[in-house]
Amino acid sequence: MQRYFILKDDAWSETDVTIYGEDVHHISRVMRGEVGDRIICNHRNGRAAICEISEISNDKVRANIVDWQDQDVELPIEVTIVQGLPKGDKMDFILQKGTELGADSFIPYKAERSIVVWDEKKMKKKLQRFGKIVKEASEQSHRNKIPTIHDLVSIKQLIEVSDQFDVKIFAYEEEAKTTSYQSFAEVLKEMNSGMQLLICIGPEGGFSEKEAELLKENDFKPVRFGPRILRTETAALYALSSISYHFEELRWNECKQ
Amino acid sequence: MQRYFILKDDAWSETDVTIYGEDVHHISRVMRGEVGDRIICNHRNGRAAICEISEISNDKVRANIVDWQDQDVELPIEVTIVQGLPKGDKMDFILQKGTELGADSFIPYKAERSIVVWDEKKMKKKLQRFGKIVKEASEQSHRNKIPTIHDLVSIKQLIEVSDQFDVKIFAYEEEAKTTSYQSFAEVLKEMNSGMQLLICIGPEGGFSEKEAELLKENDFKPVRFGPRILRTETAALYALSSISYHFEELRWNECKQ
Repeated sequence: MQRYFILKDDAWSETDVTIYGEDVHHISRVMRGEVGDRIICNHRNGRAAICEISEISNDKVRANIVDWQDQDVELPIEVTIVQGLPKGDKMDFILQKGTELGADSFIPYKAERSIVVWDEKKMKKKLQRFGKIVKEASEQSHRNKIPTIHDLVSIKQLIEVSDQFDVKIFAYEEEAKTTSYQSFAEVLKEMNSGMQLLICIGPEGGFSEKEAELLKENDFKPVRFGPRILRTETAALYALSSISYHFEELRWNECKQ
Repeated sequence: MQRYFILKDDAWSETDVTIYGEDVHHISRVMRGEVGDRIICNHRNGRAAICEISEISNDKVRANIVDWQDQDVELPIEVTIVQGLPKGDKMDFILQKGTELGADSFIPYKAERSIVVWDEKKMKKKLQRFGKIVKEASEQSHRNKIPTIHDLVSIKQLIEVSDQFDVKIFAYEEEAKTTSYQSFAEVLKEMNSGMQLLICIGPEGGFSEKEAELLKENDFKPVRFGPRILRTETAALYALSSISYHFEELRWNECKQ
């Protein structure tokens, strides 16, 4: 069944949901939906309902709520990816794949070695495109929620915001070269359901020594993601896949009890 | 230091290595290398040497072998990715990221639901491009070897070739929907260093019921990669990241002793 995120509270009543905008086009034209067809509608609160289409017009689709679902496919810990601005369209890629793999939110970061400069004037359009990418990826991967994309931060803002997280780590290439590296597994073993993890990833050139020192001073732990050198756009995917494996497949928290 | 794969045996002597072809252009023009600069040269046997450039001419670079390195960054198990032919340029992406994440080899598979048809006439050019992608990704991620790319296989050929592997699994979306799914972690817990794992991933539409039945009959275990629905090009990355995490970060094999 196709899934739609219907985020406006007033779209929902006790018994039905009314869909406007691009989703109407998707339901009626792309999916060729008809009255009687079933879809899944996600509420802003993370819950999802199986709904049956009762009415299709040019500008709206109305559907009856048939059954609220309990299935939760969110990661047991909340993961925020801080991504040093990468070149080209890599940010699009990181947002799409990171959403599929369960990220809770993303913070773009103006790193010392970021070459790209985000044009203030084009920011609104850029954020609109990003919003569309994570919405579509959430629908496609059957997520219960859509990740949040925060505004661009400086190192100072990053350190300020990091206070809100239980655990903070950063990918540091120098770690991958040493034998006494910090183990990402030790970090995950200390975490329990509901905790918040901040993962910082540098741009193509990685973090500078100065950035690394500042992060360490502010309780960010340097980690490696395996012994191979990963491209910037691969690091978040490694981290999120490993977190899913640790909690959802290996089920470390259940085995350790 | 920049890394180059020098695969021809006669390029190597006891004391030095001679480099021809595209790598010469890369060393002299792209990296602006000079006599005295150091590079890493990988031998076909997986070993790597630090070398010092002794001569640069238009068509060749000669370098003295300074020191053989011992560092091995290959995954402890050998992972072969069978990828159902995906649309567009997704195969390029899977080869590049799969190489970064440690895959040993790739087998393109003509799945029942593959829409793309590979043109026989363009095959030579396609394989050349694929070869270039995995060579560059191996160099960039400091791998000790370059993954092998096999010829396109049918389901019959896939089942024939699968006999050579210790463990065979396939990603099956139906598994992700059940609560009694096969755990990927249980599969990895049974594996030890040097064993060979075959991972099959369907194209955009996944495996058909018929394919899934055939695979099960031939000892392929269906697994899920987390509870979210992943795109075809994300599945191999999830699997390889989790394998690295399991063996190289969590170090399951060491903990269990």
